Amino acid sequence: MNLETQVKARIESVQVEMNRIRAGLLVLGLSSGMRYLTGFTDEPGERMLLLLVPREGDALFFVPQLYEPQVRDASPVERFTVWRDGEDPALVLRHALTKVGDLRGTILVEPTLWAECLLILQQALPDNSFASAAGILAPLRMRKSAEEVELLRRAGELADAAFVQVTQEPIVGLTELQLAAKLEANMLSAGADSVAFNTLVASGAFGAMPHHRAGQRKIEWGDVVILDYGCKVDGYCSDISRTVICGEPTPAVVKAYDAVKRAHQAAFDSIRPGVSAQDIDRAARGVLKNLGYDNRFIHRTGHGIGLDVHEPPYIIEGNGIFLEPGMAFSIEPGVYFPDQFGIRLEDVAVVTELGGILMTTVTRDMQVVG
Amino acid sequence: MNLETQVKARIESVQVEMNRIRAGLLVLGLSSGMRYLTGFTDEPGERMLLLLVPREGDALFFVPQLYEPQVRDASPVERFTVWRDGEDPALVLRHALTKVGDLRGTILVEPTLWAECLLILQQALPDNSFASAAGILAPLRMRKSAEEVELLRRAGELADAAFVQVTQEPIVGLTELQLAAKLEANMLSAGADSVAFNTLVASGAFGAMPHHRAGQRKIEWGDVVILDYGCKVDGYCSDISRTVICGEPTPAVVKAYDAVKRAHQAAFDSIRPGVSAQDIDRAARGVLKNLGYDNRFIHRTGHGIGLDVHEPPYIIEGNGIFLEPGMAFSIEPGVYFPDQFGIRLEDVAVVTELGGILMTTVTRDMQVVG
Repeated sequence: MNLETQVKARIESVQVEMNRIRAGLLVLGLSSGMRYLTGFTDEPGERMLLLLVPREGDALFFVPQLYEPQVRDASPVERFTVWRDGEDPALVLRHALTKVGDLRGTILVEPTLWAECLLILQQALPDNSFASAAGILAPLRMRKSAEEVELLRRAGELADAAFVQVTQEPIVGLTELQLAAKLEANMLSAGADSVAFNTLVASGAFGAMPHHRAGQRKIEWGDVVILDYGCKVDGYCSDISRTVICGEPTPAVVKAYDAVKRAHQAAFDSIRPGVSAQDIDRAARGVLKNLGYDNRFIHRTGHGIGLDVHEPPYIIEGNGIFLEPGMAFSIEPGVYFPDQFGIRLEDVAVVTELGGILMTTVTRDMQVVG
Repeated sequence: MNLETQVKARIESVQVEMNRIRAGLLVLGLSSGMRYLTGFTDEPGERMLLLLVPREGDALFFVPQLYEPQVRDASPVERFTVWRDGEDPALVLRHALTKVGDLRGTILVEPTLWAECLLILQQALPDNSFASAAGILAPLRMRKSAEEVELLRRAGELADAAFVQVTQEPIVGLTELQLAAKLEANMLSAGADSVAFNTLVASGAFGAMPHHRAGQRKIEWGDVVILDYGCKVDGYCSDISRTVICGEPTPAVVKAYDAVKRAHQAAFDSIRPGVSAQDIDRAARGVLKNLGYDNRFIHRTGHGIGLDVHEPPYIIEGNGIFLEPGMAFSIEPGVYFPDQFGIRLEDVAVVTELGGILMTTVTRDMQVVG
């Protein structure tokens, strides 16, 4: 599908939903949501750049003059209000709001829009109520098309290749940050747009902190090291975790690794349309509980992924959403022993009519490295 | 100054200002502002993680359980409210707000806080008014300490070194993205925390779009190529632009390059305490106007820099703020010829009692590369 057709279809789907719930306007900032609806995005910045989608009629780009050429270049959206450096964007926005469409109804804002913009909108539209747009954007974005899945797969291939390469060379003696840099440089030079998030390398006791990033600690013999990283291809993310052992693993590590691998397999095997998100979480959690690790698995089993590295559906107890073909999410069971080590294995899976398929496929067998 | 003393002093400075303007609470999300006030930050994500600073008494971290260890590890702030995966963070937050302090007065939110959080806060505190916290955070953050300037300089040195390295090898035949990856890999492997922003490589006619990122276009003989990139060291950013010529430059390019270089020099030479931000802009703009390029310089002269790559003070007409020692900002005049080429030269300058000093110092003479 070409971009123009795709953008038109996606904006129309949003407007159908806006009509149903009587929303007056949808507002997005620079974000993955803007990319999804228009083809254009960039890093958020201090110059206000918004997409205004009225309930009916054409969407409007509100852009700083400096951005106009590349927004027009990247997106088929044709309606623009442009403001110049030196003008007060809040004033220009106020005028744009009078023209964009019939604003009666709730104003929906993308969850990640900056509070600064929301405050300006609330001042400009004091009689409207405001609500999060999560409920209308997420259902659309959750179901990936074949083209989107292909990009997830390409991003996954670059992540797989980076793992193969860094485990072929010594890692003992590198700092966590140096190892992270190798993984990132590998994906970037192989054609990734960018990293999907700052790479996590959690060695030794840091492995027991699931969200430790990477620091100046040097990797030593005996360490268990979690690598958690990914990249973007045409905006779509990969996200993989592997755990490597520097030298001979202890029996406790071997046992825990095997448990995590079984939990990962159980979660993957339970993927099929009609199963709920929490069922996937229960499958992984059940295995770890049976093996005596239930109080070691201290986070959800996974998160949806696409243009954002974390997006719905979340694979967590309490989320009863039923899986559908095209949904993409991570399965990433882990166990954590404070002050000792952590182990996590993660791949992104996509739901098909016949079950799950994985976007990263490099071995999950325990890798002993030097 | 150790982190504990620094955090205490910064939070107290904020509270003094909150008392002066009768603010009831300051709320920050995962951001550079949180790092500035607490020592901790991370990439913003879907799990709500906030810092609540009451007008009096201790600041409170509102964190997902998963993050608690590394927040405690990174920050001396001791007061915590922790919520678990599976709980509704909005409910837990509502309870935390009843305990954090005397909330009478305006609730100040960091400009980049997610709209989703602001909506939750507005529901929880329906009787309070809300406003942007930009006015109290920016003045503090604008004046850098000697330690902060040292980090800006180290980030600048890594950017300088990356330029030297990539210009020693052929660039004709590389795609923009490949050249961007080389610059980024160079800074990361030399010890940067991360890139400061996605590298811009704008070749040929793309150079005329000041915010073009990097794409699949192959760099050719005859191209004028703008490189605009930077990295972070302990959170502090560098930001440099250089323009290189692939082969013999045309007379128009030579003339325009010289004009930009003179404008950069004029802006730099006008830096001293007591001069206003717009005076720096006028200095650069005046040179380009006198040389016949006034309608080619289509953006402001610069932006402040620190933990954010763009922060106050902005170097733009209309900004009458007076420069003070410790302020750090880019000077980045450029000229743009649509469908032909662009030229930009950028360095970060810091104001001292005696004038400006530059954080990047690699040559600004025209570099002819192959």
